[in-house]
Formats: sequence, C-alpha cells, structure tokens
Amino acid sequence: MTQPPSPRNRDFADFACSLADAARRETLPRFESGVVAEDKNAGGAWDPVTDADRAAERAMRALIEYRYPNHGIAGEEFAERPARGPYVWSLDPIDGTRSFVCGLPTWTTLIALLEDGRPVIGVIDAPRLGERYVGHAGEARLIGPAGARLLGTSGCRSLGEARLSTTDPHLLDAPHAFERVRAACRTTRYGHDAYAYARLAAGSIDLVIESGLKPHDYNALVPVVRAAGGTIGNWRGESDLSAGSIVAAATAQLFEAAVEALAVASA
Amino acid sequence: MTQPPSPRNRDFADFACSLADAARRETLPRFESGVVAEDKNAGGAWDPVTDADRAAERAMRALIEYRYPNHGIAGEEFAERPARGPYVWSLDPIDGTRSFVCGLPTWTTLIALLEDGRPVIGVIDAPRLGERYVGHAGEARLIGPAGARLLGTSGCRSLGEARLSTTDPHLLDAPHAFERVRAACRTTRYGHDAYAYARLAAGSIDLVIESGLKPHDYNALVPVVRAAGGTIGNWRGESDLSAGSIVAAATAQLFEAAVEALAVASA
Repeated sequence: MTQPPSPRNRDFADFACSLADAARRETLPRFESGVVAEDKNAGGAWDPVTDADRAAERAMRALIEYRYPNHGIAGEEFAERPARGPYVWSLDPIDGTRSFVCGLPTWTTLIALLEDGRPVIGVIDAPRLGERYVGHAGEARLIGPAGARLLGTSGCRSLGEARLSTTDPHLLDAPHAFERVRAACRTTRYGHDAYAYARLAAGSIDLVIESGLKPHDYNALVPVVRAAGGTIGNWRGESDLSAGSIVAAATAQLFEAAVEALAVASA
Repeated sequence: MTQPPSPRNRDFADFACSLADAARRETLPRFESGVVAEDKNAGGAWDPVTDADRAAERAMRALIEYRYPNHGIAGEEFAERPARGPYVWSLDPIDGTRSFVCGLPTWTTLIALLEDGRPVIGVIDAPRLGERYVGHAGEARLIGPAGARLLGTSGCRSLGEARLSTTDPHLLDAPHAFERVRAACRTTRYGHDAYAYARLAAGSIDLVIESGLKPHDYNALVPVVRAAGGTIGNWRGESDLSAGSIVAAATAQLFEAAVEALAVASA
C-alpha cells in the first residue's frame, strides 16, 4: 500500500515534518490570540479563510521551493505549481478552518507527498493538541506530548460495535445513505474534520464517513490510515477518492459493512 | 446574577478548583492510556460509563465530605448526599463521556456550588487541553497554558453573524425548531458538549442550543456564561433550566433572536 522504506523516502518524511513545524509557527500563535476570518465564498455558504491559512501555506511553499525546486505544489490557498518529475506536495494549511475560527482545538495541517499521483507520505498535524500523525513506508506513528508510538486501528469489524464520526451531517451528499449507517452504529461523534481519521489510525474511532472532500483534504489521510491497518475508499467500496466521498474503517470487514449499508454501489 | 465576592465565596472557589485538580488526576492518565467503557443503559441507547467517571467522582466526594461535611452532593454516578444547610455540590466527573471513549479531547469535568438551589460557582475543566473556566462573583476566568485571563462573550447580536454549536443533532427534542435556527446562523459546529459553553464564555462561539441536559450537565455552565456577559435560559426564553432545554448566547439580543426562531414559546 505504501512503498518500502528507502533513504530518500525517509528524507522526504523528515522534510514533511519540517513543513508541519513551519506551519505550526504560523497557525498556533494566531489561534491562541483569536482569529479574524474572511469569507472566500461571499454570497454563498460561509467559507472562512484566515491570515493563518495563507501564512502557513506560504511558509511551506517557500521551504519546498528552496529544497526541492522540481517538486510540484498543490495547496488549498494558492495556484498550483507544476512538477518537473514524479513528486507533488499536497498542502492544506488548516483543515477545519471553521473549528479554528470557533476556538475549537481539533483543526489540523495536512501534508502529503504524491509520487506519480499516489500519496506515499501523509502527515496530519494537530498543533493545539501537540500531536502529529505520520504515515509512510508501511508505518503510522503518533508523535505527541508523551513521545512517539506506533499506531494501529481497532479490530472493530461490525457496525453495531462501531464508533462512527463525520464532521457535519449537513455537508453530506447523500444524507439518507449516511443515516442508514448512523442508525446501525454504536455511537456517532461529529465535528472533527481530518482529526477523526487520525483517531481512527490511533484506534479510538472505528469508522469515518464524509463527502465533498477535495484532494488537499484526503491525500494526507491515505498513508496514515493504510499504514495503521485501516481501509480507506469511496462510498462504492472502490479505492478511487477523486469524487470526494470517503469511507475509512478500522478493518476491511467494517469497510465492507459500511459500504453495504450506504448501498450506493449500484446508484 | 452571581453573589458579590466574599471571603467565604473565594474559599469555595479555590476549593472547587482543588476538586477539579483531584478529578484530573483520575481522568487524564486513563484518557491517555486508552479507555474501556461499560454501557449504563444496556438494551437502550448506548450510555457509556468508564472507570474514570467513577474514580473522579469518588475523589471529589471524599474531599467534600472531609472539608464540608454539612454540604450536600449531587453527582452523576453515585447516590445523592443530602445537605444540612444551604450548600450542595453538583458534580459531573466526565461530561462528554462519548468523546472521552473516542479519544477526542473536549470532554470536561463540571463542578458547581449551589446555594439554596442557585448555582453561585461554576467550573468547566478541560484536562486534555489544560484549560479551566471558572465563573463566580461576577467574574469568569480562563486558567490555561498561557496563564489566567478574564473572559467575555463576543458582541454578536444577530443569527446571521452567529457561530452556533450543539453536540448532536440527533439528541435534540425538537429538531425542526433547531433547524430553523441552524439555517439562519453563519456556521454550525457539532460535538463539544459543555466545552462549547466554555468557548461561548471565551467569545469564540456565539450561541449554543441543546436539550436533554440534566442538572449536573447545566449547573456549572450558568455562573461561567453569566459572569462572562452571556445569557442562558430555556427554549422559551425563561431562566428555568429544569426541563433540560438550553439556549446560551453571547448577548441578550442574540438570545431573544434564537428563542424567536425556535418559536416554542407558545407550544
């Protein structure tokens, strides 16, 4: 699922962590001093963007351009920089900007390295919590206040035992399909954006179902979830995430059960 | 709204913080090492309780019984201890047990001192975040990683500008009434239990609407929200919270606007 370790891969993973450090220096002080948001989508649904989003993406871009001038960059806030070669960095400076502007702690910075379009390194960094989830080379690690440890998903195989998470029931493309899964699960928690996938990798959430995600939202999740032993795919049970509808599960059995309950395979 | 400061009141507030310290010593290590939950409501909706809930309540009860043997105790997990005199402690060792068992950080410990049935001191303690919100004697303070500061709600007066929060749309008694408010608000965040009221006191959330709360869920919120300048009452706009339906707002104007949109005053 992820490529075998190589010296270059390790360098890239260390570099991805230095990008997360640079983003933290921009986001965390602004979060702690209170935030002013602008609306990216004036007239439509509120789509906040902050000075912290832009400053963090700018800091990460500058490091990539200096260190790997041939690598491409696809970030949320600025224009794409084309690659000369196989590598592209996918950046979401603040995933969960709505939580960020509401003073809620589970917003994250998402960083992925794509090789020929496939995410091979993923970082989910949660600055306010001091937690960093890194997936690459078949291993998922949490680097947190208590040190570093290897991550593994829970062994949950059935909806009836599952702790389900989604960010906002009103953001789902097919609320009735989601509702069938929700009604079958043990409990549902809302509101955590990419942090829910981090907790799935850590074994404390069993299932995450969302829709409407963009590549910068999901690229970093894939190596973290897969290296922790989880399964991530789309609502039809396929591995292609480009339509933005995501199912991530602790086990392949739970993934299949969720896809079956969503029942959109033949839609 | 809260009584004027008095030496005794200050002693009680310091003691409330020592209760929160004692609860943290029981909850936080268990949260960080992973959690096993039992079901309090076997056969019905999943109602998890953990060893951490019971240990934290036991620790707080022991301190109260030693220091103030005449005070009453109304906790979530054990039988009520009747008061000899005007004072009763209201304790919720872990508010947000579902978040706790999902490894999510915004669970809290809630502590209130009632004088003749009226909450005069409130503590919302968020151990994983290192944040403690204390309301008493007309002042609300946040004691956090960056020190202590006075809290005040935002000046938000209209639904169109409001950041709304509720824990779970499926836990609401009147989802259609809530939906009228949600559709009118700028954004909605889910999933934070009592921590949403703490952020309302801190000015980063403007409106919280919930139902089904028990006294141990809401008693501690009242002194924190009121001392920060907010308004808290029921869905009909009255101050009686005993039916468990709560509206908390940054300003009196926003409170009125929410009550009008809920439109249950004459129901």
